[in-house]
Amino acid sequence: MSVTQPQGFRAAGVSAGLKSSGGKDVALVVNDGPTHDSATVFTANRCKANPVLWSQEVVKDGTVRAVVLNSGGANCYTGPEGFQTTHAVAEQVAGHLGIGAIDVVVCSTGLIGLANDRSDLLAGVDAAYAELSADGGTSAAEAIMTTDSVSKQAVVEGAGWSIGGMAKGAGMLAPQLATMLVVITTDAVVAAGELDQALRAATRVSFDRLDSDGCMSTNDTVTVMASGASGITPSLPDFTEALTQLCADLAMQLLRDAEGADHEITITTLNAASEDEAVEVGRSVARSNLFKAAVFGQDPNWGRVLASIGTTSAQFDPADLDVAMNGVWVCKGSEPHADRSEVDLSGRELSVTIDLKAGTERATVWTNDLTHAYVHENSAYSS
Amino acid sequence: MSVTQPQGFRAAGVSAGLKSSGGKDVALVVNDGPTHDSATVFTANRCKANPVLWSQEVVKDGTVRAVVLNSGGANCYTGPEGFQTTHAVAEQVAGHLGIGAIDVVVCSTGLIGLANDRSDLLAGVDAAYAELSADGGTSAAEAIMTTDSVSKQAVVEGAGWSIGGMAKGAGMLAPQLATMLVVITTDAVVAAGELDQALRAATRVSFDRLDSDGCMSTNDTVTVMASGASGITPSLPDFTEALTQLCADLAMQLLRDAEGADHEITITTLNAASEDEAVEVGRSVARSNLFKAAVFGQDPNWGRVLASIGTTSAQFDPADLDVAMNGVWVCKGSEPHADRSEVDLSGRELSVTIDLKAGTERATVWTNDLTHAYVHENSAYSS
Repeated sequence: MSVTQPQGFRAAGVSAGLKSSGGKDVALVVNDGPTHDSATVFTANRCKANPVLWSQEVVKDGTVRAVVLNSGGANCYTGPEGFQTTHAVAEQVAGHLGIGAIDVVVCSTGLIGLANDRSDLLAGVDAAYAELSADGGTSAAEAIMTTDSVSKQAVVEGAGWSIGGMAKGAGMLAPQLATMLVVITTDAVVAAGELDQALRAATRVSFDRLDSDGCMSTNDTVTVMASGASGITPSLPDFTEALTQLCADLAMQLLRDAEGADHEITITTLNAASEDEAVEVGRSVARSNLFKAAVFGQDPNWGRVLASIGTTSAQFDPADLDVAMNGVWVCKGSEPHADRSEVDLSGRELSVTIDLKAGTERATVWTNDLTHAYVHENSAYSS
Repeated sequence: MSVTQPQGFRAAGVSAGLKSSGGKDVALVVNDGPTHDSATVFTANRCKANPVLWSQEVVKDGTVRAVVLNSGGANCYTGPEGFQTTHAVAEQVAGHLGIGAIDVVVCSTGLIGLANDRSDLLAGVDAAYAELSADGGTSAAEAIMTTDSVSKQAVVEGAGWSIGGMAKGAGMLAPQLATMLVVITTDAVVAAGELDQALRAATRVSFDRLDSDGCMSTNDTVTVMASGASGITPSLPDFTEALTQLCADLAMQLLRDAEGADHEITITTLNAASEDEAVEVGRSVARSNLFKAAVFGQDPNWGRVLASIGTTSAQFDPADLDVAMNGVWVCKGSEPHADRSEVDLSGRELSVTIDLKAGTERATVWTNDLTHAYVHENSAYSS
């Protein structure tokens, strides 16, 4: 039931004709309160889509009463016309709910550079409003799918309160469908400032460490809304822990549904001088096309791991790096160690462990391999 | 005739059994003087191969009398044993020539993490010394090929002096054969300090702006040796211009021979606030797997260009970017402009032009598309 599991939320997903497949393409999630605290994180890409430009203004006061999302068009690089479409969608939602448009977050995903049909979109909003229900979470989750093969939903239960979430996005990005959208709901009582702290802590170790192909979306949005309907105020650490668990669950669902991927790769960097350096090292490996193509070929190519580490500014001794794959230490002291044939890459999961021997910090980054199917899906003509 | 075109040089290429194909795999280029000025640039990767660690010491005094190169093994991440192999090779060359090993640059290319057979390598040095000749340039160029489909050679003539060069490397990197090696010779009289200035200026706008797959090699080495045999001292600007022309020629040969590539992509960033920012923007596009896969699919996907630009720190207005492909301005003011169907991507060459409207500087970066063949060649098991 995802976003409608916590009390105080209604949701719906409908088909508005935006997707050529005729599938559901407009979703609406409404917070009926009594509280309307919220927090949101957006893509760091400087070339942002119109819904992001709009929603950045919406979230500033910490109050969000509804999130409306559409697939079938990213409304990105569509200029002032596109921005007006986003604004019109927010106004349409606000009109139905009797609230201000400035409390409505808008998210879009789909083709870049093509305008959405505004009247189709507004009709979709009307239909979604009419369908709103306290068990509409799954329907909403389906309406935000693009190349996702399954909808992504998760729930974490607290003591008398809960958190629900839905997500869309393929770890490896499809033709111009580059977006990860996440809506999270909770019936706990959490003030906007604390929601923001908790959300940043949770995304920092989950969505922020998914790096399927190094390409940063123009539309990424993660919004959390708190209805307070449970009447219970959890401690901030408890809430943060539950939110982190929920985000990690959704992130792993995204990773496993990455388009064209044959392997889920978990890169853990140990004994770094700082957590940031551990992340930098993991990300450098996650972005090596050579390494990722080798994994697709079931080649435990630790030389490409070292070559990637060597491009970072992290502290380490280049002559004393250790690397394990699926628990086999194929490289110790920057030299060959266990025989590479001991590494079994026939399964979908690969864990890479890097020991920098430079400190006590650690971090994990997740990615996928580089496959024929990735190239195929991302080279298909977009029209 | 490449490196033996200028007076004062002998070269050879022989087969020493390092390559499983039985092809030539050891090359030797000797500067017979009268001068032995030199300059060298190396990979910026911090995890360097043993030949690079050795040669970094060799080049410090500006004197290099010979370069010995082998394919069939990169001698990278092979520890102290591997370093001793490099040293032994330099000593073997030095013994034959009656010079010090500390004047012998060593370059290796091939598999990472596997030791070369030292006795095979030393026998190869003996054979190469015996074959040295003033027309051995082509043979040497052939001996450094790995997955290159053709040898790369170039000559630029000055007024009574000349520059010759040979290169190996595939723009897109093959299984663990990640290296670009370049040897340049000239019979002009140029002091080491000026050679260094000229080489850095030339590589900065040629090899440094080739970015086929974003992966940085562990073995890259570019060495220039001046014999002074022409007796002519060109002006530094004249020499730098000729050297830049030679490096650009070899760089374009590398680009055109990139493994698995279907397109050569030239990305020119105009009106940047600085040349560095223009390079940063070009490189961000050159490293976008999404954009490169789209080019393979003949999709003029300018949205992916803007999404890449948005990840940089360059100065620009996200709402006012222009992008052209093969001369068609498909995006103006960050919105769709000319119809994308006007862009013809059926040929091998694609020029991408980006107008940042933030200054007066410009830079060009070269890359290739991301193809099935790239994934195939880089996923083949390395044993």
